[in-house]
Amino acid sequence: MSSIFTKIVQGEIPSYKIAEDEHYFAFLDISPVAKGHTLVIPKKEVDYLFDLDDETYQGLQLFAKKVAIGLKKAIPCEKVGVLVLGLEVPHAHIHLVPMQNEGDLLNFSQKVKLSTEEFIEIQQKIAENI
Amino acid sequence: MSSIFTKIVQGEIPSYKIAEDEHYFAFLDISPVAKGHTLVIPKKEVDYLFDLDDETYQGLQLFAKKVAIGLKKAIPCEKVGVLVLGLEVPHAHIHLVPMQNEGDLLNFSQKVKLSTEEFIEIQQKIAENI
Repeated sequence: MSSIFTKIVQGEIPSYKIAEDEHYFAFLDISPVAKGHTLVIPKKEVDYLFDLDDETYQGLQLFAKKVAIGLKKAIPCEKVGVLVLGLEVPHAHIHLVPMQNEGDLLNFSQKVKLSTEEFIEIQQKIAENI
Repeated sequence: MSSIFTKIVQGEIPSYKIAEDEHYFAFLDISPVAKGHTLVIPKKEVDYLFDLDDETYQGLQLFAKKVAIGLKKAIPCEKVGVLVLGLEVPHAHIHLVPMQNEGDLLNFSQKVKLSTEEFIEIQQKIAENI
């Protein structure tokens, strides 16, 4: 069975898409810890980040860098933080989180509540900057 | 003035070194959140990860992957998690943390107390596996 992220890539499950190319896909985390919290994934369905072949892995990291740079332009922040946990969804994914302070990334259970309109506004602002 | 990490690379400040090549350096975090918690840095002193040029950035990520694979062999764990915060030391660094569960990485203020002998044992075990 396809992972929830593969279903998002294929459009079976809707998402606030930020960026996409042949091999990678970025979209807003629906349960964000900060405004602009984005997930970056390889389209190839591999569970563990470090099991990706070197080429796909390095391509993913470079794609994440482009997204992070756009993210920082769109959402004023000190830095964009990076987190990879991967014990829940078995499809490698990188969290990119605009941080004002380290707590913005580490308090992972403290979610920010956003309306659909806010999600769309953030999505458009980031996408324009990539 | 050199960053504390540049001083570690240059050997002015001692560290439990895990791996090194011409451009990158990995060593045990002296204040670990889990056994085997490792920091991976570029020797080039750049504050923000996403300000690294693409070549240095991709090389750093590939070096981190090699370290993470060795880490998982040395320290039994579910996965090696990744964290980049970077609001304290102004020299880009990637945290690699062997995780049994997500809390191992997210409870960043809960440190594991290790003796010098334990640090040395962990250091040798990881270095052997890289």
